[in-house]
Amino acid sequence: MNHLRENGIVHRDIKPGNIMRLVGEEGQSIYKLSDFGAARKLDDEEKFVSVYGTEEYLHPDMYERAVLRKPQQKAFGVTVDLWSIGVTLYHAATGSLPFIPFGGPRRNKEIMYRITTEKPSGAISGTQRQENGPLEWSYSLPITCRLSMGLQNQLVPILANILEAEQAKCWGFDQFFAETSDILQRIVIHVFSLPQAVLHHVYIHAHNTIAIFLEAVYEQTNVPPKHQEYLFEGHPCVLESSLSVQHIAPTTASSPLVLFSMASDTPKGLTFRDPALDVPKFVPKVDLQSDYNTAKGVLGAGYQALWLARVLLDGQALMLRGLHWVLEILHSMCQQTLEVTQTALLFLSSGLGIERLSSGAGMPDFQELKEAMELRSRLQTFSEVLSRCSHNVTEIQVSLSCLGREFLKNQNQIHDDSRSIQKIQCCLDKMHFIYKQFKKSRMRPGLSYNEEQIHKLDKVNFSHVAKRLLQVFQEECVQKYQTSLVTHGKRIRQVQKAQNHLHLIGRSVTACSTEAREAQDNLSKILDRLLLDRAPEPQTSPHPVAPHPSSDPEDLVCHMQELCDDMKLLAFDLQENNRLIERLQRLPSAPDV
Amino acid sequence: MNHLRENGIVHRDIKPGNIMRLVGEEGQSIYKLSDFGAARKLDDEEKFVSVYGTEEYLHPDMYERAVLRKPQQKAFGVTVDLWSIGVTLYHAATGSLPFIPFGGPRRNKEIMYRITTEKPSGAISGTQRQENGPLEWSYSLPITCRLSMGLQNQLVPILANILEAEQAKCWGFDQFFAETSDILQRIVIHVFSLPQAVLHHVYIHAHNTIAIFLEAVYEQTNVPPKHQEYLFEGHPCVLESSLSVQHIAPTTASSPLVLFSMASDTPKGLTFRDPALDVPKFVPKVDLQSDYNTAKGVLGAGYQALWLARVLLDGQALMLRGLHWVLEILHSMCQQTLEVTQTALLFLSSGLGIERLSSGAGMPDFQELKEAMELRSRLQTFSEVLSRCSHNVTEIQVSLSCLGREFLKNQNQIHDDSRSIQKIQCCLDKMHFIYKQFKKSRMRPGLSYNEEQIHKLDKVNFSHVAKRLLQVFQEECVQKYQTSLVTHGKRIRQVQKAQNHLHLIGRSVTACSTEAREAQDNLSKILDRLLLDRAPEPQTSPHPVAPHPSSDPEDLVCHMQELCDDMKLLAFDLQENNRLIERLQRLPSAPDV
Repeated sequence: MNHLRENGIVHRDIKPGNIMRLVGEEGQSIYKLSDFGAARKLDDEEKFVSVYGTEEYLHPDMYERAVLRKPQQKAFGVTVDLWSIGVTLYHAATGSLPFIPFGGPRRNKEIMYRITTEKPSGAISGTQRQENGPLEWSYSLPITCRLSMGLQNQLVPILANILEAEQAKCWGFDQFFAETSDILQRIVIHVFSLPQAVLHHVYIHAHNTIAIFLEAVYEQTNVPPKHQEYLFEGHPCVLESSLSVQHIAPTTASSPLVLFSMASDTPKGLTFRDPALDVPKFVPKVDLQSDYNTAKGVLGAGYQALWLARVLLDGQALMLRGLHWVLEILHSMCQQTLEVTQTALLFLSSGLGIERLSSGAGMPDFQELKEAMELRSRLQTFSEVLSRCSHNVTEIQVSLSCLGREFLKNQNQIHDDSRSIQKIQCCLDKMHFIYKQFKKSRMRPGLSYNEEQIHKLDKVNFSHVAKRLLQVFQEECVQKYQTSLVTHGKRIRQVQKAQNHLHLIGRSVTACSTEAREAQDNLSKILDRLLLDRAPEPQTSPHPVAPHPSSDPEDLVCHMQELCDDMKLLAFDLQENNRLIERLQRLPSAPDV
Repeated sequence: MNHLRENGIVHRDIKPGNIMRLVGEEGQSIYKLSDFGAARKLDDEEKFVSVYGTEEYLHPDMYERAVLRKPQQKAFGVTVDLWSIGVTLYHAATGSLPFIPFGGPRRNKEIMYRITTEKPSGAISGTQRQENGPLEWSYSLPITCRLSMGLQNQLVPILANILEAEQAKCWGFDQFFAETSDILQRIVIHVFSLPQAVLHHVYIHAHNTIAIFLEAVYEQTNVPPKHQEYLFEGHPCVLESSLSVQHIAPTTASSPLVLFSMASDTPKGLTFRDPALDVPKFVPKVDLQSDYNTAKGVLGAGYQALWLARVLLDGQALMLRGLHWVLEILHSMCQQTLEVTQTALLFLSSGLGIERLSSGAGMPDFQELKEAMELRSRLQTFSEVLSRCSHNVTEIQVSLSCLGREFLKNQNQIHDDSRSIQKIQCCLDKMHFIYKQFKKSRMRPGLSYNEEQIHKLDKVNFSHVAKRLLQVFQEECVQKYQTSLVTHGKRIRQVQKAQNHLHLIGRSVTACSTEAREAQDNLSKILDRLLLDRAPEPQTSPHPVAPHPSSDPEDLVCHMQELCDDMKLLAFDLQENNRLIERLQRLPSAPDV
């Protein structure tokens, strides 16, 4: 299209039927635009008046004249191609046309015109569900669209702006190319939201910052960036907002980033339309063309069921795997908390030997001793708190191990579940074989009696196998998925509870260790002071007492008086000390005595 | 076969061509034995004399009479079926016959007979590579056999015992059934040996103990049980020898147990035969049957290449993933060691305040103080050692992060590499299309001129595409695999080095913490003693000094004398103390003063 635009050519009949798919050297798809029967030279600003094209894909203005045959003076510009591209994109993305009046676009042409022209801006499809009923607008792609939400979010604004009848509001080709190129330049990061059990595809530029990525995830998951925690390949994956998205390891749908948040969502899982609703019924009589069409429709629903079955199974595998990882991480967090707690306890127990101090020595300073005693009992408390933390962590470990054992069983089940897919595949093989027969038959003028009998039998068989396929899908795949969603929800809550608990314990271990350290620090300072206070006594006070007593009796008496006073003071101190010691012995005995 | 045996029937013409494959309801393969034209009732001990069967699969005794037409008096038992089963199993498992004389089994019948009868016991195949050349025996399945080594190890003894011409040595049906049932009852545990980069399939009974599993792994990997460390889904997986194998989580080839050992193997990776060696050449002239056969052979080699390409890519993915996991685990080990070290350092720094003690107080007991000083400097040393450990751990973390970033690049490459597989697949699709034409043509009596021209062109195209396929396989898949093996080897060594280093650090942290705790304990005991020694002094010695001095001068002098003596002692103590303090001040200054 870009090439046509650069060469000033308008195609005028763009539709899926005019796009051919080639398989390239590497097996990749190459799409080629064909059928230039209606093309003509037309520059950006030029107009033309002749009408061409296929009505479902026609710009409303051209539709008005060509289909409704209303006389009007409008001339058409290059944007008529853009409209057709829009309808083609919609059709390719969803399998159905965007604008459908009751009875189909070819039955109710006036309504068809009304839908395309009255469409509110922003809407990308319009349907009339009942005869003469109201028009229903949709601003998003239908549930049957297989494109990821991430891609849909990128595509819908483009569709809304090119499926726009009003020339003034409609995008030009330049903007269309710019916006579509922008999508093509993005990379996909697969994010599995574990609490919601939904796989997201985030389309983002490799040069964007991770902050932008986190915002994009927020848009799809409703988990604010600061609450987003990621795992990759079983281990925490720290994403630094300032780095570019290139620093994220390449993801795939089976190896995505796993988003784990504390949000207490109920897992909603995959939302999908039951393919059984789209299964057409065979007409009773033999009608080769109609039977072929019906078989094709049923086969389509069957393949959709197979695809869904795989997606559902992958979803279950991701749920189990993600939770397994979270369990393992919590387990090693437990281990780490335990080791830190044990180390802290080890050093606390070696402590400062206060037990010995309090029982043995007489303290000169009651206040300081009291303080030391208090500190000591605080340290004791800390050590008890830490022991309790350590005990709690062990309890969490036990409950995690229990959950882990449950998982083991589920993993065994998943291996069994893949059999359902084999069954569906087997049904499809059989159906495909009959479908190919129908495809051949429909080209022939008629069937012989025998051939007709075989055809009838094939119809019965086909319906029978199709029924079995849908039964397997409903009863094995869907029901198991629903059950596993419920179990997942319960487990997520259990794990989140354990995680919360562990966080709290971790915090109290840290707080406790810090306070214990401070208490130890203070205690050692007090001990210092006690040692210092005691040491100077014999050093400084005895100094004035000279070793030589004078022989003068008056002097002697005077000296004696001095000595006596000193002695009294000393005796008083001693009595005080004795009382202290007595009181100490009467104190509540130390916890570990 | 079991059913036939129970009903006393001998089949006498068992070969792959008489076994039909049905696809069951769930897409599973169901094999049915057919063609009972040669069957007759024959009980275990009965004999028969008539000969039937297809010569490649014939028991040597029957071969001797039926093919070599030698008169002999042997009667044949039910074990002739067992021999045919053996040849059939070998053929199905390897794609070729076990006994091949030069020129093929149908060209050189005397040698064929010699191979089957002269085969040493234990050998399961014999080949004559040159005309009249020696016979070469093999005791294992060839490299082209796609069965895992684990299954081969189970199968080879069975083959050796039923491909046994000597009646006395040959197994009976009962033993055969017992041994094959035993294999069928085993479960498979996938073990990827990370240092060797080889995926192993361990066949084991669910009720066996893990100790037996570890031995089975030892047989395949040569890693002794005590050195086997496992990871599963990114996390260490502790296998308790006494538990049963059922406690191991279910594995798949893409999610195996990862065996990580410290063995310094060079990674050998997958050993395989280059499929290019098995590509037959087209004859120049148009020969519909021969062209079809050649195309079939080439296509077979092509599919083998596709299979190998996938296995090689999976191998690369497992290498990267496994190393990534080991890196992450080492990372969290680093984190854990760091936290423990930090906690230990925190408590050590709060220490016992010895700095303050040594600088301030005068100590009465020099010996104890010296000891305290020593302990204190030891604690200082421990704290330095721990700091150094913490520093080393940080260094390891940096180098691990570097490795991690390298990985990111490789993971991006793997995504590119899967394109090679798409290319091969695309070539195969084209080849398969031509092959189907050849298959149709070969049934026709002849080709028109135009058809022959198209056939010739198809042959050229087919060869061209086949060449491209093998080129992609060689130049993209194999070479990238070899390169990644070399890189893997280097990285394994780096990671092992880091792990060793980390283990050593972990051990010194533990040792250091323990010793530091002991030192702290001792120190606090000494401090206790210091406080106790000092406290009793004023308590016990001043007691005899009464507070009331007598007024009698003689008495007074006498008392004065006593006081003076006491004072002298006190003064002496004081001087001693002062000297001690002086000496202390002259001691080498404390490290952190």
